[in-house]
Amino acid sequence: MAAQTDTPPSERTRVRRLAELANYEHSTLYAIVDSAYLCHIAFYDEKGSHCIPTACWRQGNHLYIHGSNGGRLLKLLSGDVQVCVAITHLDGLVLARSAFNHSMNYRSAVIYGNFERVTSETDKRGALDAFMDKLALGRRDEVRPGSNKEFAATTVMRISLEESAAKVREGGPIDDEEDMSIPVWAGILPFIRTQSPPITDQAVIVEAPLYVRQWSEIRANFSAD
Amino acid sequence: MAAQTDTPPSERTRVRRLAELANYEHSTLYAIVDSAYLCHIAFYDEKGSHCIPTACWRQGNHLYIHGSNGGRLLKLLSGDVQVCVAITHLDGLVLARSAFNHSMNYRSAVIYGNFERVTSETDKRGALDAFMDKLALGRRDEVRPGSNKEFAATTVMRISLEESAAKVREGGPIDDEEDMSIPVWAGILPFIRTQSPPITDQAVIVEAPLYVRQWSEIRANFSAD
Repeated sequence: MAAQTDTPPSERTRVRRLAELANYEHSTLYAIVDSAYLCHIAFYDEKGSHCIPTACWRQGNHLYIHGSNGGRLLKLLSGDVQVCVAITHLDGLVLARSAFNHSMNYRSAVIYGNFERVTSETDKRGALDAFMDKLALGRRDEVRPGSNKEFAATTVMRISLEESAAKVREGGPIDDEEDMSIPVWAGILPFIRTQSPPITDQAVIVEAPLYVRQWSEIRANFSAD
Repeated sequence: MAAQTDTPPSERTRVRRLAELANYEHSTLYAIVDSAYLCHIAFYDEKGSHCIPTACWRQGNHLYIHGSNGGRLLKLLSGDVQVCVAITHLDGLVLARSAFNHSMNYRSAVIYGNFERVTSETDKRGALDAFMDKLALGRRDEVRPGSNKEFAATTVMRISLEESAAKVREGGPIDDEEDMSIPVWAGILPFIRTQSPPITDQAVIVEAPLYVRQWSEIRANFSAD
């Protein structure tokens, strides 16, 4: 099976291991990114390689992150350092008839490039609004919006999704022909990330909005590592 | 609140951002690692920084990974390259009364060091057995064990958990005093990773073992990013 593609992989994003699982289509990549609240960012400085988790969201063909101006991560990334961003969702354990053929189902995305600061006031507010909308659509109109001081203290950065690749493993075990007769259960033990009932802050006196009341009814169509 | 510690942080593992959330206790670190099936490994080579997800498990004070001898990741790591390994579990969205004070609950671990090959036959088999036990306890006695050829084709590596740090954010929103009267719902929207019903491979004729029958009844005490 050939890898699906609509943008050719770069030297860094070409999947070598189990290349038939590679997928270079934007739709696949976007779905993986949009299912994630967190990404892991790898970068290198004088102390060595680092791998830092941080909240993320997507707008168009860019992945966005944010943080305090004082934060070490964003300070470092502002130095135009090359990064690799990874997002991985674990979907299940794949139990095969032989120990060797056990596997996992997952959807992963890897992005290469450099983060750039979002400097335009409008774009920065738009990005933070999009993040809030991802967390809880409609909540922006209910909370106190960021003050100028808070806004100024926040750095928003983005990285292009151009140099990226997705890798997806799904389906049941792939056993050796001679193992098929082994009398052992085989199949998938699936994981799903679900929402458990909201925990209301003690001081709250208002009724929960719809997006809170529906929280634990929604079945997320994704899981995560 | 001071960071909890029973091993002093190194220059690389000292948590600087929100340092009061830092935790250097082994028990906390072990719980985070043991709740994970995947980790992200950051390393640097002539092509730049990379962030690669891979399956992992813990034995004692080491984190283990494995793969095919031909795999690029393990080949690279065998070159005694310095790495940073990260594991992050997302536990919930924290909705505050102001946009700025929104947060997420999470448990994350970051490990610095170098992977070493597990060369002893006994240790290697023991490590792979421990991994299988983590995936499905008892299954080792049911499946076809790895052949000498499969065993020889597999590389097992481990990294010490000595230079590591955990960071945990839990609890509800922390709002500014002057925002407490804002009539908006505030609290936690929790995530949990749960198991959905097993999917049996078509060719299976035997009855599912207990660990499969119980799969979707078990409520995992962890979620994940």
